[in-house]
Amino acid sequence: MTGPSLHEERMSRFRQAGLYLVTSQSHSGGRSTLQIIRAALKAGVRLIQLREKNGSDRELAALALEARKMTSDAGALLIINDRVDVALAVGADGVHLGQHDLPVDMARRIAADLIIGASSHSEEEAVCAERLGASYVNIGPVFPTGTKSWTGSFLGIEAVRRIGPRLNIPFTVMGGIRKDHIGDLVRAGACAIAVVTAVTMAPDPEAAARQLLNEIRAGSFASNPRNSNKSCA
Amino acid sequence: MTGPSLHEERMSRFRQAGLYLVTSQSHSGGRSTLQIIRAALKAGVRLIQLREKNGSDRELAALALEARKMTSDAGALLIINDRVDVALAVGADGVHLGQHDLPVDMARRIAADLIIGASSHSEEEAVCAERLGASYVNIGPVFPTGTKSWTGSFLGIEAVRRIGPRLNIPFTVMGGIRKDHIGDLVRAGACAIAVVTAVTMAPDPEAAARQLLNEIRAGSFASNPRNSNKSCA
Repeated sequence: MTGPSLHEERMSRFRQAGLYLVTSQSHSGGRSTLQIIRAALKAGVRLIQLREKNGSDRELAALALEARKMTSDAGALLIINDRVDVALAVGADGVHLGQHDLPVDMARRIAADLIIGASSHSEEEAVCAERLGASYVNIGPVFPTGTKSWTGSFLGIEAVRRIGPRLNIPFTVMGGIRKDHIGDLVRAGACAIAVVTAVTMAPDPEAAARQLLNEIRAGSFASNPRNSNKSCA
Repeated sequence: MTGPSLHEERMSRFRQAGLYLVTSQSHSGGRSTLQIIRAALKAGVRLIQLREKNGSDRELAALALEARKMTSDAGALLIINDRVDVALAVGADGVHLGQHDLPVDMARRIAADLIIGASSHSEEEAVCAERLGASYVNIGPVFPTGTKSWTGSFLGIEAVRRIGPRLNIPFTVMGGIRKDHIGDLVRAGACAIAVVTAVTMAPDPEAAARQLLNEIRAGSFASNPRNSNKSCA
């Protein structure tokens, strides 16, 4: 008789989070990523991805260590963008991999306990990531966004409604999501709503995060009054 | 009673290698890095670092997998530059970390069995890397080199003679090393001579590698006729 694995425990918390804050120092209106994280934690955010594309690996590792302390103290999950080694070295809960990063199956081989997320821009990529061992996939960009130079078209909510049911693992959505979209995305089955600038560029990141969390909870309640987690595979 | 650890086994082979080939696709005269590795293995090189700064992580991982197959078949060690995760994922023997990469102690925490090398440009950096758990340090650049945009001064053989005795772990030397320097560097205690262009840019990389290996063996023999490995801590 064994209890739930560390991966299962982490995924259980992942499913409860609702809002998924993704950081970006270069889109934080002059505030530091750690300031943004602090504000989000205060608002109740419990799922944070450290995504910092600038700076050296050594700087990223130092930043990740700080973020790990803050998120652990608050009981929040920390996911590191791109880097499995940094995630393992700082004791993060997971890693998020894009289509040009280490393949999901290779990452899984060296990180059985980590939440491994994968970016997908199509049904094919999403299904493939699940097959390779991803813990969740992100579907996006749903709407136009300024944080990524994205040459493809954005997917729209219809694509989310089409791709979601093809997956047996939870999916998150990202890309240009604002408060008004949240009800539709939650009803489409999104497990968590991932945002960057809706929080990082907000005049008051804490208030913005709190509003988004409330919106998500209301959306979950409306879509299934008896079980607010049912929509989350 | 336990045998030598995997790390010890790897280091024992590391100490025997003599020549340390570091790849660079952009300095290979139009040949591929895999072609250069194949030629080096044929010449008897048994220690290879995959150092490829261009391309995505996914491309690096695919290249590393190929390099792993080739080096395993030849009984050669494979070290991956910069990336602990890629090294672990492809089953490489080690990782080489620069001053801006993941710190050595963080890498050691997640990779007990890997050879972990560290670049050092001064006595202080070399001693620090040893203290943090490096398996070996590289001292360099010894001479001016075109493969790295290096703004510091090059160290010269005198610095190698000064830094070497301060270390309890093996050290390698790198940076603009040509055939004529080898005797002096081996006598200064270098465990392996690391080269890029002396092999990768050679008209005949296999012949160049073979010549360098012979030069190193002759240097080791001259410096200590009774034990050609004694110079290697």
